Amino acid sequence: MKKIITISREYGSGGREIGRRLAEELGVPFYEKNLIDKVAKETGLSEKYVESQGEYAPQKNIFAYAFVGRDSEGSSVGDRLYNAQTKIIRQIAEEGSCVIVGRCADYILRDRKDCVHVFIHGEKEVKCKRIMELYHLTKEEAIREMHSMDKKRAINYNYYTEQNWGKVDNYTITLNSSELGYEKCIQLIKLCME
Amino acid sequence: MKKIITISREYGSGGREIGRRLAEELGVPFYEKNLIDKVAKETGLSEKYVESQGEYAPQKNIFAYAFVGRDSEGSSVGDRLYNAQTKIIRQIAEEGSCVIVGRCADYILRDRKDCVHVFIHGEKEVKCKRIMELYHLTKEEAIREMHSMDKKRAINYNYYTEQNWGKVDNYTITLNSSELGYEKCIQLIKLCME
Repeated sequence: MKKIITISREYGSGGREIGRRLAEELGVPFYEKNLIDKVAKETGLSEKYVESQGEYAPQKNIFAYAFVGRDSEGSSVGDRLYNAQTKIIRQIAEEGSCVIVGRCADYILRDRKDCVHVFIHGEKEVKCKRIMELYHLTKEEAIREMHSMDKKRAINYNYYTEQNWGKVDNYTITLNSSELGYEKCIQLIKLCME
Repeated sequence: MKKIITISREYGSGGREIGRRLAEELGVPFYEKNLIDKVAKETGLSEKYVESQGEYAPQKNIFAYAFVGRDSEGSSVGDRLYNAQTKIIRQIAEEGSCVIVGRCADYILRDRKDCVHVFIHGEKEVKCKRIMELYHLTKEEAIREMHSMDKKRAINYNYYTEQNWGKVDNYTITLNSSELGYEKCIQLIKLCME
């Protein structure tokens, strides 16, 4: 029986919502934004900083990202944040069943045998519509936001994991939520756990 | 209700076996090597040629692939083969429920709403072991064969579809058969169809 679910997701694909409902149905903790408090406490960084930087590359340029803001020991604030997230995600996994969204959790927990690693993606039109509705954006704004967020997530993930975000190899299962619908995605993940 | 399953697969991942068993359980036709007769008849090409070239790039070099053996109208024998496969796969889909393995079927049937497009992948060690057993190869031979076959499939797919083989966007669901096992993969695909 698998007991830990990590969910990576394209922006607008509903991966967070699928994770939230899944955790509710399973009656297990759901970690996403609430990870931020823990990481902020661990690092002494502000919650605002942890929220904006914990999963997203601050720059579009990977070289800038790699070398920005390093301290005298050569580790950047970003590294400190990533190391704290790693520690906390491992602790959470030790505590028992849970659903964790984002934050390279699939990579951090890759050596555990009791995880299902999920990637949720979707069709551009469908994701765009969802983003427009959720955040009250125009179509152009939603498309820009979608590209920007996925790019920042990918750069952050690729930098820390040396893998490629969204590549099938990293995941137990990937699901097209636009084709399958959220409810079916939840059922499929549950079946993977059995 | 989805009624057509296309399966793309990494070499050694058991995708063909999963497709065969799934078709058997569903009581629907299974198309793989048996597509070859149909395509050979349609094109007048030999079955041997269709089998070796229908899914695999003949050269490692995509430029060589693109320009090799073109006739006076500029279409290569490979193009003729691809066009015949396209026609036949569309006909088969019109006839009703079925499972089709390989041959860009996901791309060829991308506009139908009654398909589940599956990609099966697996862990290198597990795939390698399977290839060694199935084809009586040494580990080195199996690794070489695995890389070569996947590369040829990818070049063929990318050339004809202008998409990337194994990229999540092309598929409804991707499954790691090494983690999940074949039986669970079959169950998951069935659940997608409901």
